[in-house]
Parts: sequence; structure tokens; C-alpha cells
Amino acid sequence: MSGVYESARAGRNASFIMAGLSASDKDAALQAIAKALLANSSAIVEANKEDLAEAERTGLAMPLRKRLLFDEGKIQSVVEGIDSLISLPDPVGRQLLGTQMDEGLSLYRVSCPIGVIGIIFESRPDALVQIASLCLKAGNSVLLKGGSEAVHTNRILAEVIEASSVEAGMPRGWISLLESRSDVEEMLKLDEYVDLIIPRGSNAFVQYIMQHSSIPVLGHADGVCHVYVHEKADPEMAVRLVVDSKTQYVAVCNAAETLLIDESIAADLLPVLAKALEAKHVILHGDDRASSIWPMKPVDQWHHEYLDYEMSVRVVSGEPEAISHINKYGSRHTDAIITEDEETALRFMQAVDSGSVMWNCSTRFSDGFKYGFGAEVGISTSKIHARGPVGLEGLVTYKYKVFGKGQIVEDYASGKQHFTHKPIPLPGEK
Amino acid sequence: MSGVYESARAGRNASFIMAGLSASDKDAALQAIAKALLANSSAIVEANKEDLAEAERTGLAMPLRKRLLFDEGKIQSVVEGIDSLISLPDPVGRQLLGTQMDEGLSLYRVSCPIGVIGIIFESRPDALVQIASLCLKAGNSVLLKGGSEAVHTNRILAEVIEASSVEAGMPRGWISLLESRSDVEEMLKLDEYVDLIIPRGSNAFVQYIMQHSSIPVLGHADGVCHVYVHEKADPEMAVRLVVDSKTQYVAVCNAAETLLIDESIAADLLPVLAKALEAKHVILHGDDRASSIWPMKPVDQWHHEYLDYEMSVRVVSGEPEAISHINKYGSRHTDAIITEDEETALRFMQAVDSGSVMWNCSTRFSDGFKYGFGAEVGISTSKIHARGPVGLEGLVTYKYKVFGKGQIVEDYASGKQHFTHKPIPLPGEK
Repeated sequence: MSGVYESARAGRNASFIMAGLSASDKDAALQAIAKALLANSSAIVEANKEDLAEAERTGLAMPLRKRLLFDEGKIQSVVEGIDSLISLPDPVGRQLLGTQMDEGLSLYRVSCPIGVIGIIFESRPDALVQIASLCLKAGNSVLLKGGSEAVHTNRILAEVIEASSVEAGMPRGWISLLESRSDVEEMLKLDEYVDLIIPRGSNAFVQYIMQHSSIPVLGHADGVCHVYVHEKADPEMAVRLVVDSKTQYVAVCNAAETLLIDESIAADLLPVLAKALEAKHVILHGDDRASSIWPMKPVDQWHHEYLDYEMSVRVVSGEPEAISHINKYGSRHTDAIITEDEETALRFMQAVDSGSVMWNCSTRFSDGFKYGFGAEVGISTSKIHARGPVGLEGLVTYKYKVFGKGQIVEDYASGKQHFTHKPIPLPGEK
Repeated sequence: MSGVYESARAGRNASFIMAGLSASDKDAALQAIAKALLANSSAIVEANKEDLAEAERTGLAMPLRKRLLFDEGKIQSVVEGIDSLISLPDPVGRQLLGTQMDEGLSLYRVSCPIGVIGIIFESRPDALVQIASLCLKAGNSVLLKGGSEAVHTNRILAEVIEASSVEAGMPRGWISLLESRSDVEEMLKLDEYVDLIIPRGSNAFVQYIMQHSSIPVLGHADGVCHVYVHEKADPEMAVRLVVDSKTQYVAVCNAAETLLIDESIAADLLPVLAKALEAKHVILHGDDRASSIWPMKPVDQWHHEYLDYEMSVRVVSGEPEAISHINKYGSRHTDAIITEDEETALRFMQAVDSGSVMWNCSTRFSDGFKYGFGAEVGISTSKIHARGPVGLEGLVTYKYKVFGKGQIVEDYASGKQHFTHKPIPLPGEK
């Protein structure tokens, strides 16, 4: 039996204990972790220096080296993250449904941990702390695999988190670090023990994970987000929203990649939009009709995530074509319509098959923190389980609890007893 | 491009239209289907007779021939099912969360259809009507594959449903019938177009589907359900609940397969339980300790679904051993504890990792109709998406809708604007 198998099995056993922990047990463990990270900060920074030196030796690209850096400032910021996580309500034990099945026979749907989560992330060591603390808050065990270039940093972080949390009462085995690619391959097969995989990284990487495991995956491979400027758009607003959606931060999944504009307004408005985008150094790639209005490069393919100062532009005949373009070439992530016409907006928001649909605001708002979730586990483009920006609730599931007084089904089958099926109000409901 | 591929693509396109339909549009289509089934009942019964004759020729086993029968009575009962489905509230368009992100910037989480559902079911043609109407109610397109022995019945049912619903305004392509095993193989690969697979059938069959598709699967391979008689159980209640859980209907997934009993009460209570079960013709299979108290066959393996008048019996040292037995050998379906001790019961319900956990009532209550869901899509032992008995809500997902007035993220990033993140009360909330 391999190390990964043993880790997964230990994680599963620990998860049964985690499921019974109270909010204050878990928050105390988070507190202990935050304290231990600060107490061990010089050792952590030392370990990180080893990784940085190795990265320099092997000539790792500068942006990756920057992401690898984990200094006192980064430690301070992950500790702040833990503090804010402690202030969030416990996602476990929430009553989601209550039904009186009969006098003295009550049904509750109650949120509970998922069990064992496998997380695979690339270079940034911050992700390890973030995701481990999110999993703990939701009562899940976690198997972590970080980038190999951060091996020393990840190792000490995992050690500090494990030692301090177990000392604070977490069951041994709730957190394990995997270290090799073959460990990951093996984890992807352990569907008996691992309930959910969360991959964080490049498109190709996430796609690979999705295609190589029968374990459910929470995440998104790409974010091909659209802004559709409808013929009834306010032109000034359209410019502001298109520029913000594209350029406020180009390297992220909720940045817009494609501009769709109605033909009836394209001749007037496209040049204004193009000028505003080009003033921000955005290179445009258009279809024939767009190019005939404003000079731009030809577009290669519509399903394209630039993550850069580049944007595809298409002139459409109206709302139905815009919707079908988005549903065909988009990635079910985030898409916006700009229009003053409410009916069109509502239709668009109903028909576009994406996790987030926006009316008259920037696609960049699609984010767990901006949505007020207090934490973000990731953004999901899958439709099953969690969709769109995912807060802590993406790390829990639910179970049904039935409280009886000795009732048997035979009495209901024979007609001696009858179900009442009256709703039991949820806490806070009238 | 194959027929299945075309059907899946047509289903996807239809699903975008379905997503925009109102509750009354969908209920009108359901009404039309019910009417058409009654109007075509003699042709349906004729087609079914062909299948029955073929089944007789090929010597199909009697129980399967019985399930294949689809007569006037069966038509009446599926029509009643459709009528009760019409009376249920629309699962689509429910507001699940509301947040004021800022003055004039509102976020809503709203339920919406999943998209395209693939259903694979065995001999009973009733399943075709049931599942197609559930999918329609939830606004989903559906690809259906029934048992090959019911080919004539399924064909006419699908034709009648399609013709009458399209006539009533459903988009063409929302329902398609697959006819061969290779069609199914192909559907399992179409993760671009098919969002969820619901297999109904034998364990081996469901297991096969789960292992051969990267599309999420809703369902359960088996139901190895436990009744745990704790030392503080009321003996009379224990007998009643064990007998009902095991024998009220043995051929179903929520029937109990294993009895666990605390060693401190086994010597007294096990003989009483065993006598009561044997009076119902249940054959017991025990571990050494159980066998030493009451003569029974040795148990083969603990993860065993008899679906018959047989039951495994194990004497355990107490609640922790019972919980770990269930989490190790169970199937995360339904498990019950019998005890007068509330604290033990609550701990058991927290720690047992199953879709339904029961205290002092029969495992046989674990069922969408008994839970008051009004309809049952299936029972899920997966933890992601829907868990436990699944009503219509298992056929919907959600999306986020953000309503703005021209807000850009840059204003919030620069500190010019601030998020308020105030909850918007849900309908019915204080």
C-alpha cells in the first residue's frame, strides 16, 4: 500500500471525527494555526529562500519566481485570511429544510462536510494555507499537492499546520502533503476515499485533471467571458463597462475576452469602443464586419482566452445571435449584457448558460469576495454541485436526518397512519 | 456525425429555449402529454403486446416480463403521476440568495435547469414517462435509453410524448430516444453536451456507467443499509423497527441488510430479534459472536446487498464500532440507530457518512415520496450535487444574476466605492 493510499485512508478516518466537531473546536484550531505560522515565520522564510535559490539555479521564469516568494508580508497576509475565516459562520450544521412527516416523525436536511478533498495547486505557497484553512473550517480532511518548485516551503507549511492543529484537537491525518506527480496520478484514482478534487492552475492542467479522474472536480478550465453591447445600450456606459471588463485586470478568469455588438449600432459605437480599448493598449481581433468598421486583426477562433491586452470582436444581428454565440463559444463562466431594455436583459440572463450573468455591470465583479461570500474556494464552470464563485458552501454537502419515535413504514403502507408533510420553518423564517 | 451526437446537440440547443419557459408553459405541455397518452392508449398497449410476445418467444424471465407489461392500468397510473407533477411548484426561478453588493448593484442566486440529462433505465416503460415528465417540469432536455426488450413500447411512448409536447410549444429536440448499447457508449463520452447521467437499474449496471463516463452521475449502485440496536434501545421498538426495515419490502435499496447490536444486550435481545425475523422467513448470517448466541449461517462479506429475506448480523462493542462498521462497509445510503439516549443518537447521526440517518424509525422511510418531495428522481449516494432521496431539485442547478447600473470594478479597487454586502431577504423571510 502506497503512501498516498495510506494518506487518503487516514484522511477518510479523520473526516468522520471532523464531522462531529463544533464551530468553536474548528475556530480554535484555526487560531492555533495562525499563531504557529507567525511563531515559525523565520523558519518558513528560510525554507522559502531554499526554493528561491533553487529556482534561480534552474532559471525558473521571473513571474513564477515572483509567485513563489513567501516572505513575512505573505505570512502576515495568510494569517489575516485565517482571522477573517474565523469570523465567518460555520457552514456545517445549517438546517436547509424541515418537514414534519407525521406527528413525532421529523425530517431535516442539514449541511455537513463533504469528507476528503484533494487540492492540487501550482507555485504559490499561499494557496496551501488558504485552502487547508478553508477545508478545516468546513470540517473536511485534505490532501494537498503543491508545485514542486515550492517543495521546501510547502513542506514546512504543512508541518506547521498539522502540528499546531493536531495539538489544538484536530484528528491526526486530517491533512497530508503529496509530493510527486505520481502521487497525484494515484490520488485521482482513489474515488473510494477522495470525494472532491479542486485543481488550481493553468487551463491545460485543470483540463487534464478533469479528464483523468472519476472523482468530481470543482473548478474551471478557462474563462472566455463576453460583454454584449445591445442596440439599446447607453453608449457612455458601454465604453466604461467594456474597458473595465477587459482591462481592469487582464490576467484573470473573469476578464472579458470577447466583445459582441449589435449591427444596428456598430458603425457608430464600435469606433468609440475600439478607441477607448486601444487607448488602454488592447489589441483587437475582429470578424469581417467588425474589421470593415474599424481596422483590426482577423480573429483566430472564438473560444479563446487571451488573459492579456487582446480582445475578440464580433458584430451580431441581435440578441438571439449574441446568446447563441455565447452558449456555443463561451465557457459558462461570466457573461454580461449592456442595455437599457429590461425585458431583453432578463431574457439574456435566463438564456445564457453561465455561472454568472450580469446586466449593466462589469464581468470583473464575478468573484467570491465581491459577491460577499467572505471566502472563495474557486470559481466553478461545472453545473453540478457548486456553480459560479464558490464560497465555503462549496466545501459542504448535506444529509437527511429523520427523528422518529418507533414509526414503521408498514403502518403507512397499510393506511393505518398518514403522512402530514407539513413544513417546519427554518431558523429565521416566519 | 452520428445520430446520438446530433440528438445531444439538438437537446442542448433546445435546452436554451427550455430555460426561458414559464411554469405555465411547462405545465401546459405536461397536460398535453397526459392527454395524448390516454388518446393513444390502444396503440401503446398494442406496441407493448409486441414486446411481450417477443419476450415470450425469447424466454425472458417471468419477473422481467411482469415489469415489461404496460397496460391501460399502467397508462392510467403514469397519467396520474403527470397530474401530481403539474401540481408541484416550478423548481426553476427560485431565489436562493440575495445580496445588495452596493446601492444599485444586486446579486441573486436563482435556480435554473441543468441542461441536458441522459437517462438509462431497464425494462419498465413507466420509467420513460416518469423521467421525461420530471425533466420537462425542471426545464431540461432529455436523452432516453430504455431496455431493448421494451423497444416497441418505448418507441411509441417517446413519439407520443414528443409530438404532443412540441405541439404544445416545447422546442423540437428536447426529447430523444436512444436505441442501442453503442448509443449509450457514445452518450457517455459527450460531456460537452450532456450535463448529468441518471442510470436506473442493477448495481452492476450503475457501477459500469459510473466508471465509464466523466459526466456526473446521479444515482446509487447499491443500498447496504444498517440498523444499529444500541444498548439503550427500547427492546420492543427494536424488534418492530428491525422487522420493518428488513421485511416491509425486501427488494428495494432502503431495506436493511445488516443488523448491528451492542454486546451488552446481545445475549438477551438477539434471540428475540432473531425469532421475530425468522418468523418472517429471514435467513440470518452472523459473525462468530452472533452465532454463539443464536444459531445462524456464517457471514460471507459485510458489504452485501441481499435484496431478499436474508440479513447479516454483527455484535459490536458499542457505538464507535458500529459507526466505523457502517462507514467502512455501508454504501452511504440509509442507516438507523435505535436508542433512548439522545446524545448517542445525535453523535451517530453526525458521524455516519450517509445520505439519510434515522433515529428510532425504519430505514424504509428513506424515499422522496415519504419525505414529502412530491416526486422522486432517484436516491443518490454521491455527496456532490444531490444526496439522499432526490426530488425535482436534483434536476436543477443555479446561476448568479447581477443587476447593475453601470458599475465598474476599478471604482471598488481604487477605494472610490465600497461594497455594502447586505442580505436581501428571500421571499418568505423576515
